[in-house]
Amino acid sequence: MDPIQAKLKEARVARLATVDAEGRPHMVPVCFAYDGEVFYTAVDHKPKQVAPEKLARVKNIQRSPHVALLIDHYDEDWSKLWYVLVRGKAKLVQASNLEHAKAFRALRAKYPQYAAGMLVQDAPIIRINVERIISWGKI
Amino acid sequence: MDPIQAKLKEARVARLATVDAEGRPHMVPVCFAYDGEVFYTAVDHKPKQVAPEKLARVKNIQRSPHVALLIDHYDEDWSKLWYVLVRGKAKLVQASNLEHAKAFRALRAKYPQYAAGMLVQDAPIIRINVERIISWGKI
Repeated sequence: MDPIQAKLKEARVARLATVDAEGRPHMVPVCFAYDGEVFYTAVDHKPKQVAPEKLARVKNIQRSPHVALLIDHYDEDWSKLWYVLVRGKAKLVQASNLEHAKAFRALRAKYPQYAAGMLVQDAPIIRINVERIISWGKI
Repeated sequence: MDPIQAKLKEARVARLATVDAEGRPHMVPVCFAYDGEVFYTAVDHKPKQVAPEKLARVKNIQRSPHVALLIDHYDEDWSKLWYVLVRGKAKLVQASNLEHAKAFRALRAKYPQYAAGMLVQDAPIIRINVERIISWGKI
């Protein structure tokens, strides 16, 4: 497999950036599943005590679909640093949608935590369509 | 020390989000120094073969100062997840400025890699003035 594609599939965490109504960036760490084409990330798991539609990332995406997703590795040996920046457009996939079931399965397959029940069945899932992938460092 | 302040000072890496001319977020992992008031991050170290003024983050900040800085911890035990989101405004500090010397010293004091020479003396440094700090999880 292409090493960048492998990193994107294997990484356990990514950071998702969105832009708010005032043009200011917002950011949050996210778990995600990547099928080689699109990314899926859930907008809710149990520790988050906020209704999905009130989350900043959800409000931002509904206003402006432009997002960035960063997967990186930090190492004190800076010759081993790398990152992959995914820029794309996000869309909310509602629980009633067939695609939601597919994304739900992918997230549960990747994360035992989700399979153990930490995924709210009726919360929307964010789909990210990739527009550009930029990589840097020793991948 | 306040635990959030401690995390902000000790973290080795953060992710910096900026917004481009088309209103799209951009993101990059950064090393930084935090003195309890402002954040400093260098825009160049040797593995990056691009002139500082051509870096996306620099171009974006010159156009729109709004940035987000995310410091987080990922753990497979999701009860241990946490993040701190810093929202603020960024400004370039040029090498001719007295503040540049102070920031330069702070970065070299925190990172032996910088002290060993991986910091370009005449490259600008980004200062981030904090507007809001949001934290989540077990800090």
